[in-house]
Amino acid sequence: MKNMYPLLQTIDTPDDLRRLNRSQLEPLAHELRAFLLESVAKTGGHLSSNLGTVELTVALHYVLNTPYDRIVWDVGHQTYPHKILTGRRERMHSLRQLGGLSGFPRRDESEFDTFGTAHSSTSISAALGMALASRLKGEDRHAIAVIGDGAMTAGMAFEALNNAGVADCNLLVILNDNDMSISPPVGALNRHLAKLLSGQFYAAAKNASKTVLKGAPPLWELAKRFEESAKGMVKPITLFEKFGFNYVGPIDGHDVDTLVSVLENIKQLKGPQFLHVVTKKGQGYKMAEADPVAYHGPGKFDPAVGLAKASGQAKITFTEVFGNWLCDMAATDSRLVGITPAMREGSGMVEFEKLFPKRFFDVGIAEQHAVTFAAGLACEGLKPVVAIYSTFLQRAYDQLVHDVALQNLPVVFALDRAGLVGADGATHAGAYDIPFMRCIPNMSVACPSDENECRQLLSTAYAQEGPVAVRYPRGVGAGVAVSRALDTLPLGKGEIRRTGKKVALLAFGTLLHPALQVAEVLDATVVNMRWAKPLDTELLLQIAAEHEALVTLEDGCIMGGAGSAVLEALAQAGLAKPVLQLGLPDRFIEHGDPVKLMAMLGLDAQGIEASVRARFCAIYPAN
Amino acid sequence: MKNMYPLLQTIDTPDDLRRLNRSQLEPLAHELRAFLLESVAKTGGHLSSNLGTVELTVALHYVLNTPYDRIVWDVGHQTYPHKILTGRRERMHSLRQLGGLSGFPRRDESEFDTFGTAHSSTSISAALGMALASRLKGEDRHAIAVIGDGAMTAGMAFEALNNAGVADCNLLVILNDNDMSISPPVGALNRHLAKLLSGQFYAAAKNASKTVLKGAPPLWELAKRFEESAKGMVKPITLFEKFGFNYVGPIDGHDVDTLVSVLENIKQLKGPQFLHVVTKKGQGYKMAEADPVAYHGPGKFDPAVGLAKASGQAKITFTEVFGNWLCDMAATDSRLVGITPAMREGSGMVEFEKLFPKRFFDVGIAEQHAVTFAAGLACEGLKPVVAIYSTFLQRAYDQLVHDVALQNLPVVFALDRAGLVGADGATHAGAYDIPFMRCIPNMSVACPSDENECRQLLSTAYAQEGPVAVRYPRGVGAGVAVSRALDTLPLGKGEIRRTGKKVALLAFGTLLHPALQVAEVLDATVVNMRWAKPLDTELLLQIAAEHEALVTLEDGCIMGGAGSAVLEALAQAGLAKPVLQLGLPDRFIEHGDPVKLMAMLGLDAQGIEASVRARFCAIYPAN
Repeated sequence: MKNMYPLLQTIDTPDDLRRLNRSQLEPLAHELRAFLLESVAKTGGHLSSNLGTVELTVALHYVLNTPYDRIVWDVGHQTYPHKILTGRRERMHSLRQLGGLSGFPRRDESEFDTFGTAHSSTSISAALGMALASRLKGEDRHAIAVIGDGAMTAGMAFEALNNAGVADCNLLVILNDNDMSISPPVGALNRHLAKLLSGQFYAAAKNASKTVLKGAPPLWELAKRFEESAKGMVKPITLFEKFGFNYVGPIDGHDVDTLVSVLENIKQLKGPQFLHVVTKKGQGYKMAEADPVAYHGPGKFDPAVGLAKASGQAKITFTEVFGNWLCDMAATDSRLVGITPAMREGSGMVEFEKLFPKRFFDVGIAEQHAVTFAAGLACEGLKPVVAIYSTFLQRAYDQLVHDVALQNLPVVFALDRAGLVGADGATHAGAYDIPFMRCIPNMSVACPSDENECRQLLSTAYAQEGPVAVRYPRGVGAGVAVSRALDTLPLGKGEIRRTGKKVALLAFGTLLHPALQVAEVLDATVVNMRWAKPLDTELLLQIAAEHEALVTLEDGCIMGGAGSAVLEALAQAGLAKPVLQLGLPDRFIEHGDPVKLMAMLGLDAQGIEASVRARFCAIYPAN
Repeated sequence: MKNMYPLLQTIDTPDDLRRLNRSQLEPLAHELRAFLLESVAKTGGHLSSNLGTVELTVALHYVLNTPYDRIVWDVGHQTYPHKILTGRRERMHSLRQLGGLSGFPRRDESEFDTFGTAHSSTSISAALGMALASRLKGEDRHAIAVIGDGAMTAGMAFEALNNAGVADCNLLVILNDNDMSISPPVGALNRHLAKLLSGQFYAAAKNASKTVLKGAPPLWELAKRFEESAKGMVKPITLFEKFGFNYVGPIDGHDVDTLVSVLENIKQLKGPQFLHVVTKKGQGYKMAEADPVAYHGPGKFDPAVGLAKASGQAKITFTEVFGNWLCDMAATDSRLVGITPAMREGSGMVEFEKLFPKRFFDVGIAEQHAVTFAAGLACEGLKPVVAIYSTFLQRAYDQLVHDVALQNLPVVFALDRAGLVGADGATHAGAYDIPFMRCIPNMSVACPSDENECRQLLSTAYAQEGPVAVRYPRGVGAGVAVSRALDTLPLGKGEIRRTGKKVALLAFGTLLHPALQVAEVLDATVVNMRWAKPLDTELLLQIAAEHEALVTLEDGCIMGGAGSAVLEALAQAGLAKPVLQLGLPDRFIEHGDPVKLMAMLGLDAQGIEASVRARFCAIYPAN
């Protein structure tokens, strides 16, 4: 490494960086990019976004007095260069692994990580809080939010802009605008940005930003003041100026020298500042530039060869099960419409969009709108399917309660990434959906145990006249073959999968499979409960009557979860029966290999067996 | 009535309205306003907002083909004129009462109520869904969202604008801009709107809208096309045009004739339209015009006299308890900052703002931003208190999980309107907060049983190093005197309030008081549990060991609630004990007098006693 990264190896803190000459920044950026590529190729992780922020990261830490000045990175998956420059270079090999560096900023990982981010569009709110706190405390620190153009479409970014634009504080919002051409523009904002980047205006703006460079703010200010009325002025007022920001840009986000100059200037200005930086996802690595979506979050790969073709995978993922079902159901029912908040690829809707472009709606990162928009479609007799990650449905909770469930509208929620998600960690865990949905009247919540049942439960959900969520985990399941049929299962009914003695294991979702293994050893009964709501109370009471003890299993949190639904039903029936609830504990679970994590939490077959034996030692005396 | 409302009495459906001559609309509007005032004075309800939408409602139903065309009223508390004109005039006397008309639009109340609204800022999303459904189905219906300037600050309105502005459909967004002077502008959007209404531009825009009236869209279109480059053009591009809408306005929302003309014209235009209408809250009733906040949602009053002075009220409300505590704690700790999403009055923060203006942040209707903004403030060592209604915290659920709890930041949530809220009904019920907060790691949830304990638990919450919510109901409590001290209670500890036999009543919150009454009759033990999380497991297990049966009481939903926490703790301890869970059932509860509602649900002393006796009839044999 010493030979390959002569400059980078000298940077253990941003103070080291700030001791460099300005002319060294460009070579440093080259080294940083090379190191980043080598590192991510070994560990997997987010790539395109990080290649795009190399120069911006160097410039920010060079100009600003971090960590005294606060940088809040929106979404946070573009912070690898930031981690490398802030003392974590040597730990990059542990990225996203159990006990290793997080793939996102974390306050407990470094003082340079001022705010934990992973869900999008939180940065302006958080940075505004920091900026106003500074003002109240009489400090002169700067607070900076770095936010992508995608994240800017989310409502909360606008809520924050609306507040920040009239706030008297040292807030800088940097719009990291990734080359618009790489993904189809969604919504008016993207169209606005594209216009800002186009032709004549771009040129004029470039000149304007050069004026800033020359250290002549008065002239710039003067020009700005007259821009509405001045004859022949070509620069339109940007959206961001409407919000009260001083807009600077667009500037080239890969020109570190320009970035440093512009940031130095902006630092002198008072009030809310908005810098529009144009970067390219995947910058500097040809294969990622050509296909930034594929290189958004690759696994390990050989940088010289690129990503290996995904082939030979025996099992299909739950996401693919959903995607196939969606296309098949859409083919039989023209009322079906599919909605995604900016997760077309992640939710498995690429094929659906291809086949049914008019019935596909990507609303951008806008979960609240996605759900109420679906409610509006449902009011007119269409059959909306909202594909959304469990963790992102948290963004639309009120819309689920107030717009969908209260009106009992038939909206299907295809809830991907339920349970633990692995490398993304606690921020993305789909751990809370059972409690937060179960308490809503009119909601039904299905927990398929395998791929085929996932398809069946999606068909079942689609056939209902009220809202139903089908929650399924990230990745592959037990490998059960998936039928092409669109047959349904009864609502709120489980099934006995194995009849044993004394103890019954009641599984909600994919933990059915380790439960079946454990039952072989213990000769226990196994029930595939299928629905967290409505609960199959009839089956439950029958099983309870026939067994000495019950064990509930779910891949969500125990508190208020499906196991608690079992307790409630038993209590209501006046049936006192020992129950062991197995599921996620009441703490945030770190990133890491999901198989290892589940083992660590005692939710693999071995752990389940141990817990059952320990709790019911009278039934299973130790040899 | 016949003599007073000669025109209005002939209008039983909008078809009747559409048979009138245009010249009759103004007199009709006068009658409608008089009827409205008379009606609301008798029933109580929202007044200012409804007085402001009289002419707009008349014009919309006159021009549009309702219910074929869809009107979605944002927030929905301005729909009394709409209800009166759509066949519900004779039922207005039952407004907001048990079994009577809802104070909001409801799909099950009328086919003219196309979408249930009550929480703000959902209308554009819903109307866009309807408009796009029409297009898919090949229908030519119009979809209209009527949204206030306050509701426009919420993120989801922007998410919807961002989508709608590029959608090819017949969507009309009507911004109902209530005279800006009545409340202090919050945020950049309001400033932008104020600018649109000011001086020269307003005059120019008025002329422009006259051009529309003359039926000369080509000229108007031409003018628009050149407006960016045309020399001497004074009209700036509005924010809404940046989003891709065709902007028309501002026009006088109390000039029914102009409204009709403009709407007739807009109806002919294709693509997303934006009409900016200026109205006055309280229009036509001098006392409401002078104080629209006081007349926002008055109780019954004499229209000739106005509101009676609020005096002689013996008990203070929980909201006032919070407001007083906030001022007192702020006086002792300069780190305290108070945040409200546009609920300064409702949350009891008027005095706080007066005393500590720099530490008061009204962020507008922007719950998501409010919570993450608080997280940002907390990162810098300040002590944010977010005052928010239980039902509106649903809007910021992800921010609570991802930005506050995951980072374990010390943010206090003062959760007003927990439990049933009475006249506002199901949309505003704070029924789900215990389950949706309890499942989040690091969260603590306190349920004060009376006013003084509310203050103590707020102080306790404030003293913690992680997030704590204190949930309290609307209105007054038991009438317990409130100390001026800022003393705390132990975290997660309950107290025995009465020692009895056989059965223990475990109360979470204000149901403690009926529980105490019941306990006198049954000689039962009563425990004031105080915390839904952390649960006082030690006390619970002690009580469980000493009694034959337990009863849990809470004013939130049973599913996943505090009673379920009790079941979980008992199950974990292996303690089989009959438990009766009392709380809100698994259905949405209608509007009506909260005392009657609680009685109807069996949650008054009489109902609780009956439930306990029925369930534990072996313990309490019938005489």
